[in-house]
Amino acid sequence: MSADPVLARIDADLPQALDRLMALLRIPSISTDPAYAEACDRAADWLVADLESLGATAEKRATPGHPMVVGHIGEGAPHLLFYGHYDVQPADPLELWRRDPFDPALEETEHGEVIRARGASDDKGQLMTFVEACRAWIAEHGALPCRVTFFLEGEEESGSPSLVPFLKENAEELKADIALICDTGMYDRQTPSITTQLRGMLREEVVLRAASRDLHSGLYGGLAVNPIHVLARILAELHDASGRVTLEGFYDGVPETPPEVLEQWAGLGFDAEGFLGRVGLSQPAGEQDRTPLERLWARPTAEVNGIEGGYTGAGFKTVLPAQARAKVSFRLTGTQDPEAVHRAFVAHVEQRLPEDVTAEFPMGDGAPATRMDIDRPEFEAARAALSQEWPKPAVFAGVGGSIPVAGYFKEILGLESMLIGFSHDDDGLHSPNEKYDLASFHKGARSWARILGALARA
Amino acid sequence: MSADPVLARIDADLPQALDRLMALLRIPSISTDPAYAEACDRAADWLVADLESLGATAEKRATPGHPMVVGHIGEGAPHLLFYGHYDVQPADPLELWRRDPFDPALEETEHGEVIRARGASDDKGQLMTFVEACRAWIAEHGALPCRVTFFLEGEEESGSPSLVPFLKENAEELKADIALICDTGMYDRQTPSITTQLRGMLREEVVLRAASRDLHSGLYGGLAVNPIHVLARILAELHDASGRVTLEGFYDGVPETPPEVLEQWAGLGFDAEGFLGRVGLSQPAGEQDRTPLERLWARPTAEVNGIEGGYTGAGFKTVLPAQARAKVSFRLTGTQDPEAVHRAFVAHVEQRLPEDVTAEFPMGDGAPATRMDIDRPEFEAARAALSQEWPKPAVFAGVGGSIPVAGYFKEILGLESMLIGFSHDDDGLHSPNEKYDLASFHKGARSWARILGALARA
Repeated sequence: MSADPVLARIDADLPQALDRLMALLRIPSISTDPAYAEACDRAADWLVADLESLGATAEKRATPGHPMVVGHIGEGAPHLLFYGHYDVQPADPLELWRRDPFDPALEETEHGEVIRARGASDDKGQLMTFVEACRAWIAEHGALPCRVTFFLEGEEESGSPSLVPFLKENAEELKADIALICDTGMYDRQTPSITTQLRGMLREEVVLRAASRDLHSGLYGGLAVNPIHVLARILAELHDASGRVTLEGFYDGVPETPPEVLEQWAGLGFDAEGFLGRVGLSQPAGEQDRTPLERLWARPTAEVNGIEGGYTGAGFKTVLPAQARAKVSFRLTGTQDPEAVHRAFVAHVEQRLPEDVTAEFPMGDGAPATRMDIDRPEFEAARAALSQEWPKPAVFAGVGGSIPVAGYFKEILGLESMLIGFSHDDDGLHSPNEKYDLASFHKGARSWARILGALARA
Repeated sequence: MSADPVLARIDADLPQALDRLMALLRIPSISTDPAYAEACDRAADWLVADLESLGATAEKRATPGHPMVVGHIGEGAPHLLFYGHYDVQPADPLELWRRDPFDPALEETEHGEVIRARGASDDKGQLMTFVEACRAWIAEHGALPCRVTFFLEGEEESGSPSLVPFLKENAEELKADIALICDTGMYDRQTPSITTQLRGMLREEVVLRAASRDLHSGLYGGLAVNPIHVLARILAELHDASGRVTLEGFYDGVPETPPEVLEQWAGLGFDAEGFLGRVGLSQPAGEQDRTPLERLWARPTAEVNGIEGGYTGAGFKTVLPAQARAKVSFRLTGTQDPEAVHRAFVAHVEQRLPEDVTAEFPMGDGAPATRMDIDRPEFEAARAALSQEWPKPAVFAGVGGSIPVAGYFKEILGLESMLIGFSHDDDGLHSPNEKYDLASFHKGARSWARILGALARA
């Protein structure tokens, strides 16, 4: 079966494909906020119906959290397990959006047309590139060129609490030859990439409690301990002056990037100034003795993602707060052990607690880093297919983000993953005004059509 | 004219006096939040009507912010300027209140009946003790024993932006022989006090801005500067390990408390453990080489009153925020100059800003500390009058809170102030479940009736 008519069909059906994506984007499936649980459920239903419209057998599967969507279609080798997620990040701060984040629209920009909406890029637009590629194959050839299992999650943006138990319980059904994950980006607008190393992640919240109630700083200031001061010190001391993370044993298991890889990365001519300049920055922060790409792709980090304490409304309230809290995440590389990092973080906090201040750690969850086996023939087949679609040849890249599912696929299903996606640095993932380039959506679907053909032949 | 029938009248009319206070407490006059501007206006109208019911000429006077209430009544010497404020702190966190903060009620507690509501103690209950004392004098004797000017502010909890211009423009009308300010507390439930030293205050917000938008920590972490980290370091370094404030020149103008005063304070037998124990703490924080009362009453402080940055909602969002902010207040003593402290704070921040992070200081306002001239005969007259009402003799005390109006009265009107009030440490000023002891309200009014008589004779 040839991919060429499939590509033509994708071109012709783009308006209908867009309508479908817009319908999915209108569902505010924010997984981290319980107020949107019904919307998550609705997004899962929508996907089941859409997979059924391809001829797949598809089901919404309950979990203790948001449901999974599992679908099967096609015959023959290889058997591909496709993963995407239908949940999205919260949209706040809402006032920074130029339009309703759940009222998607096409907008003209300096890089061409974009689809503007929460989830346009992360991950609804991306997952639909694969679904649309399948739809076009079936429309042209009556069937896919190989067997596909769809596995779509609704908790990726909230730590995937149901993922591991679900994979374990359904391992037989989900086992395949290789996994395809569409939740990553291109190297640049000309250069597609297959992500072959992923940082892991540990996320935790620390809640400090001191007095039994908020106090008047005029009456108690100078004598009662202020948990914001304690928290500030704890967080300030997470890094030393050179940008290294200070947790004890934090760098255990962090591999040095091999010289030949560093060389390859140097050849990419990464423009740190331009990368930072697009978001209003100029100076690379972090570990000063590492190259910018190393810091982004291959080094572990510690970042405070949120902090809150005391009075933060309009005006002023001279309060000495009873508590203060912060959300902290660590990106992990090599064989760094999330549990060991968690223990080191807890120790870092507890060593800095004065009398009368207690710490709670309510969430702690983590996943180790992953490195793919790029010697498998599927990697070269996919690389060649991508290189046909885009102006420049595809590269094997590292990525800073954490996609724990790839690690779980390896660990639980014994599956290697190919991470291929079409988002861009300026998509504003997790930010206001998220968008997905229309070209990413269109040529992304075309890329998958080529890859499906190539893998069926590989 | 004798105070005795006035005291009996106060006892007899207590239910009606409580009804009036409850009506005032029902008005949510939160000055710091623009959403409550109409309520502030309504509280001013209520007070004008109440002063008129005494026979005073009273007016609501417009300012660029919330209105002032000015009233005049009585003849003869001395001429007393009475100050209180009708605005209240925000009520949040609302979920910690056991009842609607603006639906006042009497409640039975281990210390007897209390009036539970936002503003019950700070400052509506307090200001009404004076108004009710005047009402009882007029009811018994047909007139006050001396001349009184009422001056009631509506911006005390939001930094009094209109106060200084208003005092300057209306100096002739407001000039009197001495000012009475009812916004302070008793030393304990048996011991009334006249506050004779007040810490000043500098309040500022610092807003750090880095990237032009929130970033995905997986894509930018390790390379883009995180303003929460920068803010944490700035705030952590406000104090050294011994609890001293590190701002350059911060202690310039801070007087040592005279040995005889320290001795007098030692005689009070202040129970730091009990004081802290009531709010769930055990260990005095702050300057370790100072006595607890010195830290509370006579030493300058730096406190972070609020901090906010990044994602603080439910769940987790791995965002690298574009900005982070904190509200910081400094309590000042002696001749510490608020403007010099402000400059030192700005310098402290700016010295710690890395490339790409900018700081804004949107609010900065301050007032110096004040020390009263206790050799004036009114102080001894008031002390004796208070000592008649309460089980233990009145003391001259310091106070940790800042009551800038006393400084302005001295500076602009040339007036000494007597700060007399009846609140308690456990009133929960600025906290959820604020209350005012019914005994404070009742015996407070009786105290003012005695003081009015004593000052008229002095």
